[in-house]
Amino acid sequence: MNLRLTVVTLGVDDLERAARFYEQGLGLKASAASQGDIRFYQCGAAVLALYPRKGLLEDAQLPEARLGEPGRFDGVTLACNCASRQEVDALMARALAAGARAVKTPQQVFWGGYSGYFEDTEGHLWELAHADFFTLNEQGGLVLPPPGS
Amino acid sequence: MNLRLTVVTLGVDDLERAARFYEQGLGLKASAASQGDIRFYQCGAAVLALYPRKGLLEDAQLPEARLGEPGRFDGVTLACNCASRQEVDALMARALAAGARAVKTPQQVFWGGYSGYFEDTEGHLWELAHADFFTLNEQGGLVLPPPGS
Repeated sequence: MNLRLTVVTLGVDDLERAARFYEQGLGLKASAASQGDIRFYQCGAAVLALYPRKGLLEDAQLPEARLGEPGRFDGVTLACNCASRQEVDALMARALAAGARAVKTPQQVFWGGYSGYFEDTEGHLWELAHADFFTLNEQGGLVLPPPGS
Repeated sequence: MNLRLTVVTLGVDDLERAARFYEQGLGLKASAASQGDIRFYQCGAAVLALYPRKGLLEDAQLPEARLGEPGRFDGVTLACNCASRQEVDALMARALAAGARAVKTPQQVFWGGYSGYFEDTEGHLWELAHADFFTLNEQGGLVLPPPGS
């Protein structure tokens, strides 16, 4: 399988401020998948997520010091949700073979999924993830649970 | 209409290097819409684009000096392709009312479309664009022309 962009996560300095902007401001509705410090939004055919900037760095296991380095962590991660752990591993291997830098070895993570990170040749972070509780549509897009009632 | 994420553009330091990575490396095929310094890829349900980092700043009419400022331009833009110019204008007005910073007033642009930029509360850039030659699917996703033969 090839790379698919399913989620764009914006690192934010103030989660509540950002959520107000996208929800009250722009009409997005937080999916029921949102919890704690992560907000998920079905945003057209793609999924937008908000997460604290420092938390993004921690999730990717990047040292916090890189926050201020230009050309390094840019406050955004791209995610490719995969149909299985095997796909995560295979895609990670392919990315590394293509010249990506290994950032986080795919592993069981606290939210119940299996996830790894690589950095592309330009310094952008991609997460490769598999979780049984996330559904992919026929085009490989992530289908979020609808907003809570 | 609400905000929809249709394209993620990665600002790159070396376009050919990045294109090799995503094409030969990861199996994406450049859409026939690619030309000059812009590469478009259907990437699952979303669209990924590569564009020189400086060009992205110029396209958004941001002074180049902001490249190195942490928390400001982060090397990624998010795009929402709209069905009409009126939708671009309406969504821009809504974003500004919600607290976005106006970056580029929607205007006819060199590639034949109508486009404006705003900056969200966290410093992330969104482009709002309309172009007759781009097709949107029923979910509001951008449908790219298939790869050239």
